[in-house]
Amino acid sequence: MKIALAQLNFIVNHFDYNRAKIAHAIEQVKSKGVDLIVFSELSICGYPPHDLLDREDFVLKSHNSINELAVICKGITAIVGAPSLNTNPKGKLLFNSAYVLSNGIISSIHHKTLLPTYDVFDEYRYFEPNSEFDIITVKGIKIAVTICEDLWDDQPVTSSFARGRLYSKSPMDQLKNLDPELIINIAASPFSYNNADRRKSVFVNNVHRFGIPVIYVNQIGANAELIFDGGSMVLNRKGEILEQLNSFSEEIKIIDTDLLESKAAIKDDGDAEIIRISKIYDALKLGVSDYFNKMGFTKATLGLSGGIDSAVTLAIAADALGSNNLRVLLMPSKYSSQHSIDDAVALAEKLNVKYDLINIQDIFDSFNSGLANIFTGLKEDITEENLQARIRGTLLMALSNKFGHLLLNTSNKSEAAVGYGTLYGDMNGALSVLGDVYKTDVYKLASYINRNEEIIPINTIIKPPSAELRPDQKDSDSLPEYDLLDRILFSYIEEQKDPDTIIAEGFDKAIVLKTVRLVNINEYKRFQAPPILRVSSKAFGFGRRMPLVARW
Amino acid sequence: MKIALAQLNFIVNHFDYNRAKIAHAIEQVKSKGVDLIVFSELSICGYPPHDLLDREDFVLKSHNSINELAVICKGITAIVGAPSLNTNPKGKLLFNSAYVLSNGIISSIHHKTLLPTYDVFDEYRYFEPNSEFDIITVKGIKIAVTICEDLWDDQPVTSSFARGRLYSKSPMDQLKNLDPELIINIAASPFSYNNADRRKSVFVNNVHRFGIPVIYVNQIGANAELIFDGGSMVLNRKGEILEQLNSFSEEIKIIDTDLLESKAAIKDDGDAEIIRISKIYDALKLGVSDYFNKMGFTKATLGLSGGIDSAVTLAIAADALGSNNLRVLLMPSKYSSQHSIDDAVALAEKLNVKYDLINIQDIFDSFNSGLANIFTGLKEDITEENLQARIRGTLLMALSNKFGHLLLNTSNKSEAAVGYGTLYGDMNGALSVLGDVYKTDVYKLASYINRNEEIIPINTIIKPPSAELRPDQKDSDSLPEYDLLDRILFSYIEEQKDPDTIIAEGFDKAIVLKTVRLVNINEYKRFQAPPILRVSSKAFGFGRRMPLVARW
Repeated sequence: MKIALAQLNFIVNHFDYNRAKIAHAIEQVKSKGVDLIVFSELSICGYPPHDLLDREDFVLKSHNSINELAVICKGITAIVGAPSLNTNPKGKLLFNSAYVLSNGIISSIHHKTLLPTYDVFDEYRYFEPNSEFDIITVKGIKIAVTICEDLWDDQPVTSSFARGRLYSKSPMDQLKNLDPELIINIAASPFSYNNADRRKSVFVNNVHRFGIPVIYVNQIGANAELIFDGGSMVLNRKGEILEQLNSFSEEIKIIDTDLLESKAAIKDDGDAEIIRISKIYDALKLGVSDYFNKMGFTKATLGLSGGIDSAVTLAIAADALGSNNLRVLLMPSKYSSQHSIDDAVALAEKLNVKYDLINIQDIFDSFNSGLANIFTGLKEDITEENLQARIRGTLLMALSNKFGHLLLNTSNKSEAAVGYGTLYGDMNGALSVLGDVYKTDVYKLASYINRNEEIIPINTIIKPPSAELRPDQKDSDSLPEYDLLDRILFSYIEEQKDPDTIIAEGFDKAIVLKTVRLVNINEYKRFQAPPILRVSSKAFGFGRRMPLVARW
Repeated sequence: MKIALAQLNFIVNHFDYNRAKIAHAIEQVKSKGVDLIVFSELSICGYPPHDLLDREDFVLKSHNSINELAVICKGITAIVGAPSLNTNPKGKLLFNSAYVLSNGIISSIHHKTLLPTYDVFDEYRYFEPNSEFDIITVKGIKIAVTICEDLWDDQPVTSSFARGRLYSKSPMDQLKNLDPELIINIAASPFSYNNADRRKSVFVNNVHRFGIPVIYVNQIGANAELIFDGGSMVLNRKGEILEQLNSFSEEIKIIDTDLLESKAAIKDDGDAEIIRISKIYDALKLGVSDYFNKMGFTKATLGLSGGIDSAVTLAIAADALGSNNLRVLLMPSKYSSQHSIDDAVALAEKLNVKYDLINIQDIFDSFNSGLANIFTGLKEDITEENLQARIRGTLLMALSNKFGHLLLNTSNKSEAAVGYGTLYGDMNGALSVLGDVYKTDVYKLASYINRNEEIIPINTIIKPPSAELRPDQKDSDSLPEYDLLDRILFSYIEEQKDPDTIIAEGFDKAIVLKTVRLVNINEYKRFQAPPILRVSSKAFGFGRRMPLVARW
């Protein structure tokens, strides 16, 4: 039997587009003798649809689109993800379903059993868990159709307190009684740089438990915070990976089940850390380009300071959107060093990005004049530092408003964690590119960008980080060195370790307590931050829901 | 038997405070011969704890606090809400539990069965549903202990597409087999102005189904967006309300179960609409004061424009925080009318609030000079309107930074819905007071505030709304009249009706489609809005999760 894995990029709520894309893929592979084509989870409506699932017209459009697709499924079977109505009058209104389309009709519907409701996932908000199990037969082969989390009943976790067995039932324990010869898993599994190995181990473990091959079809494409990397796979009954589809781009791959036994496993190679950084880069690039493409925007701006964060953001944006779609501002103050301006100019010129320079001193002076009566006799403090950042944020928004360039935010995760940034100032932006990338990884991204030639000026990489908001300011004046800070942050945020545990591992007590306190008391700032492209297992944003009002 | 209903205000993660408050209440009522005291859901840790439930130290502190409380429960039984560990190795790690403390120990633990996972609730994110049922006996009376949603297995809903029976099982169907004589329900049920009747009907329906009295103990107090109103109740076996505790303030009420039969039902009275507005007012006042109290802040600022929104916000803030804790800015531009300035001054003086006036023209000019090279030959547009709003937002943040006044946001729900506001400008603020109040209700709040004397100048109430960002601008230039707009918005947002349905109800097609489109395309603005005090059944913020990237 020939099976096509259709790893495609869908747009949430764009039924015409998604349906046409699916229909095109069906027609395309039908002409190549494919018997079964498999699309990803909720492919007809795009994932994640969030609260659109609460709307009747959305569910109706999904339903109608599936019916239209069924008509063209003659001489081929298609598995398409879509919500379906729960006909039981009790329980959630919907199921998260896989529709099997063949002979021009919906031949069966299979519902998701395990509904991820943690981190960025809210599936029990909308869906009733499945409790009835059946398999399908295509060309005489019995297939268990599962949806994403259905195979994740025992999963590796990053946090020390989290558990891997989140469900009391396992759908495969039911399905195995029906003697399937193949497991198909349709998914919308987002990228995180520590997820690739977890995913692989989940599939390998399932193969080992049930002794049958697995075909995994994942969505690709970014939808705001979430970046779906694709990387669809075919595993044989030994748990070897025979095929792995592209990461971060669409692909339709046709396999022949008769050849599964004889095919050689693909090999992992390359340095793990280089692969990790290159994947983060590719993820961010896709995150930026899909945000713009799917929203119908083309042009971007940002504030180029001469520092590492804006440099890396610009390089990624130039790659994602094209240099000719970028226009940036250099906005020095009297505290800005000449080398910062020079570095910013050098980068803009290297990348062929249009730039303008606005010295903010006069605007800063006008604010100080306006505030003089109120601030009489008071000395300069954080107020004036924030004021500079807010003037820059306002200038960037003016450019954005006038010319239609979306503002890219350039803050990194280390800063976002400890609140080292100005709300309504440098925290502005339609999208945060680096908000889930720790500062130490921002440096690694810079080196990766420079791997073939010096794109980001070496001076930007080697100089001590500074916000340049007061004379001779350095980040290390108020924060621990980033190498140390990032390790503490990772322990506290990703691994969810208690401060006492982190201290017991050998970190300085005062630094740990200060860092943890800064993370906690800056929840209010992150509440109003732009959407952050998620590349880790625990990003700030939708997947991390901390109380805003609490005692720390 | 004497039962105390302890309707108290807890602080999330403040175990010392919450434990001391609970212990104090226990000691207090013990001296009055009370047999059983009942606290609200998750009282030991505060509700909602959100992702703190994923942290080991948080769960451990809850556990230790419960153990400390158990020790003092001698000669009295206490029911206290807290998370507990799920000892089954499969399933979510925690239960949402009611601990029964008596004879100095934890005598039993009862878990929540129905886990609300919709709107602002995320309970299945953390908790395993209960599957074992038992009752307790206190002074010979058999009591079914339930937790909030456990009695909401069949609930009235606002949205036309939502269903009221979200669960396939009902805990009371199990518990009734154990012949309870009384139902106790501990809750953390947030206020919404359309929720009071729903709540009442849920309890009355339960009484009618099971023919036994219900004692309902709800949390009071605000935690960021969510405002818990208390309003704890005692219902007799006929479904009559015998006691109703304070709304929006703490109260400990002692009742005698022997007297339940003979006591007369309390009567609802008053004009429903006046009660609705007064409750919204009380809710917002509590929302403001608790945000400040629990965060350890006292002082607030805002931009006073002479318009209705900032006037109502200021009146509420003055009531919540005290006039002496407020300091506001008037920031006229050349487009500001003299009557706006006069109205703002009149209100500040009436409320005894310190105010300063900063004309923003010079700052505006300095921005225009800075941008002149870039904007050469281009005419004024929305850019310059936003610039004014951002200058004001920046000035307010400067005052906030310098003096420690938190900025209150003054946007209303109608504006937030259609994106009539400037990000990083008038959308700034630590807390949005009116962001869940439609403009038409803002006017009603103004009348309510003026019910005894003219506090808000009548001119502020009667003049046509205007942002005053260009000559002779009126809101009605770009928006439908608010009376019409708000009805369309309520249909689309609260009732989740499709545009076609709204049009079929007689609204103008072009206006409906324009309004709905504005709501959808402004998701990105609301993403970065401050936390909004929630008073409706569907507020912008945590309870409304729409995709940011989607096709509309």
